[in-house]
Amino acid sequence: MNYEELINFKADKPLEAARNQARRRLDGIAKPIDGLGRLEGILCRIAGILGTPDFNLDKKGLVIMCADNGVVSEGVTQSDGRVTALVASLMGKGKSSVGIMCSSYPVDVSVVDVGIDSDEKIEGVMNKKISRGTKNMAETDAMTADECLGAISVGVDLVKDLACDGYSLIATGEMGIGNTTTSTAVLCALLGLEARDVTGRGAGLDDAGLERKVRIIEKALARHAHRRNMRIGDGFTADSLKAGSLAADGLKAGSMSADGLKACCLAAGDVSPEYAFETLCSLGGLDIAGLTGVFIGGALYHVPVIVDGLISTVAALCAEVLVPGCRDYMIASHVGKEKGCAIALDRLGLKGIIDADLALGEGSGAVLLMPLLDMTYLLYRNGTRFGADAGIDNYERFGP
Amino acid sequence: MNYEELINFKADKPLEAARNQARRRLDGIAKPIDGLGRLEGILCRIAGILGTPDFNLDKKGLVIMCADNGVVSEGVTQSDGRVTALVASLMGKGKSSVGIMCSSYPVDVSVVDVGIDSDEKIEGVMNKKISRGTKNMAETDAMTADECLGAISVGVDLVKDLACDGYSLIATGEMGIGNTTTSTAVLCALLGLEARDVTGRGAGLDDAGLERKVRIIEKALARHAHRRNMRIGDGFTADSLKAGSLAADGLKAGSMSADGLKACCLAAGDVSPEYAFETLCSLGGLDIAGLTGVFIGGALYHVPVIVDGLISTVAALCAEVLVPGCRDYMIASHVGKEKGCAIALDRLGLKGIIDADLALGEGSGAVLLMPLLDMTYLLYRNGTRFGADAGIDNYERFGP
Repeated sequence: MNYEELINFKADKPLEAARNQARRRLDGIAKPIDGLGRLEGILCRIAGILGTPDFNLDKKGLVIMCADNGVVSEGVTQSDGRVTALVASLMGKGKSSVGIMCSSYPVDVSVVDVGIDSDEKIEGVMNKKISRGTKNMAETDAMTADECLGAISVGVDLVKDLACDGYSLIATGEMGIGNTTTSTAVLCALLGLEARDVTGRGAGLDDAGLERKVRIIEKALARHAHRRNMRIGDGFTADSLKAGSLAADGLKAGSMSADGLKACCLAAGDVSPEYAFETLCSLGGLDIAGLTGVFIGGALYHVPVIVDGLISTVAALCAEVLVPGCRDYMIASHVGKEKGCAIALDRLGLKGIIDADLALGEGSGAVLLMPLLDMTYLLYRNGTRFGADAGIDNYERFGP
Repeated sequence: MNYEELINFKADKPLEAARNQARRRLDGIAKPIDGLGRLEGILCRIAGILGTPDFNLDKKGLVIMCADNGVVSEGVTQSDGRVTALVASLMGKGKSSVGIMCSSYPVDVSVVDVGIDSDEKIEGVMNKKISRGTKNMAETDAMTADECLGAISVGVDLVKDLACDGYSLIATGEMGIGNTTTSTAVLCALLGLEARDVTGRGAGLDDAGLERKVRIIEKALARHAHRRNMRIGDGFTADSLKAGSLAADGLKAGSMSADGLKACCLAAGDVSPEYAFETLCSLGGLDIAGLTGVFIGGALYHVPVIVDGLISTVAALCAEVLVPGCRDYMIASHVGKEKGCAIALDRLGLKGIIDADLALGEGSGAVLLMPLLDMTYLLYRNGTRFGADAGIDNYERFGP
């Protein structure tokens, strides 16, 4: 895949008819209209994505992209880069945190080495290594365009295979020491935010560590700044620029409400695909690029993809800018603890279901959504219907 | 159980040592500190409630209190009272919505007839009927003190039995046409809120129906108003009165933020147990009283009880006022669509995990939390530990 091919991918619209059929089926079940709220909405969206109200959720997958980040040499993390390979090897044996969490749950985990800084073969991990980690984004571009395209391709191809194998729901996850640093940098560059306003403590940093992380992200953003003139896409207007600035100000002052944030993010100027790609190369990680490919693959092969935490959400944002319409294939699982999560989700027009200050990574938040969808699906599939089944008259749908 | 016995129940403090041991165990697992966020916090609280870090969640129960409400004759609902018995009979066969949702999930459902307006025996439903529904609260007190005490006893005794049988987690649910009307009235009376500000559409009402529901709640509150002088307990101060009024104003103007609401609710004056009991008799339902008993039982028999939607949350609030300290045994599952949910949860100092505009009832929101706790528990129980297991150094706990 070259760059031209990438930005010429087209995301079809999900099938509105299938979505509506699913909605009618849910409304015929003996329960209050919209009783399971936004979980019902997700199920209807899945019907639209899979193109039929007669879908099932039997085969579920989790794709975990693992990669190292050169910026770790700057001391932005509590643990060192060696931990990426160690945790990936636990993942390969089903012994990492998400593996243990899912040990009684039917989800097939694909652990992908898209850029671990090691030459050892890791048992149970797919070797799709593009390079042994990225370069240090504070000093130079993290990846070449070819490396970035390669990592995106890994994600796209993986979803193609999963779709062929009949998977109807894919969760995203990642492992890579330093990847809240890289994804925060990408988010700031895309949306014009200040690092100080959005940088979080990742897997754990004291105040001095947080300050160092902010400064390194600022340094990388300063190096990247010459590309800012590429930032704005065709959708940009004076109004949306103003809204974007207000958003940044509100965030800085801590005065922005969730609604205000949403309003301004929806209004903020579009980002051009060229700039998003350059940003991914300059500041991103191979894991972010790989997940960007997974989200694009979801749109190309019509499979719903569950968004996880910060890294995954930033990858989702990149996918949407590169291939507009991808978001219709995304399902938000949770609003993570890192501040950037809510910002990126709002920008995508998505809303998480779980709100629990999650910050584990590995796709753990995404898989937590799965049993909720299973229970909703069982009701959708087998629910007692109004009328003859229940002896109860239908509820009517009233606004709002 | 008489009234004196009820208000002399004492809720022990959960075992702090067990909670701390659980916290240390979680911090030793190879994942970011607090990686599963508030789900980890819930697990630690469960350890404290059960009194040991070596608990299990093998036996889980759902208690559904079913009862009819006289106020339904005022036309405050879309369906008629007959539906309570119909849905209860579906529940008895595992064919109601929550039964279908849990058809592949190991939770034992106790469906309890605490006041269905029917003399027929319903298969699969425990007959603990106190009376055939309540009286119309718009005209007269809904229950006598004895009826209310009887329903509370049903809940307390049920939890005693479940605790003896080794259940370590109990979800609450209800079925009763008209019970968002009764629980909204109880909430308004307890916290001094205006019906117009908090009344929702329940299982579905058009604008005219909503207006009628508001007016009937106002009528019931006006009839109940002479008891307002009993409202305030010992904890009441001029400051908390002021905070409470500000809360009501903010709510009315739609200008109150979640944080503002929380601050004012925490500051609002305590409600006296006498007033809470009188309110329950005057405006409550047998289902609310039964669930109040379940929450009290949780505290008495040291079992964590999961709070569901509006009706359950209002019952939890009643339990906390009647037997202070009950809240330490409660786990919030979600913030439901009905406005009163968030208000009552905040007043209890609890925070939901799922935020999906749920409005189904039957305990559906409470059981949705269970698989999330299962996954968290598996990690707690079997997680790979730092050090020898993983070859990774411990993460350190930093603030905040």
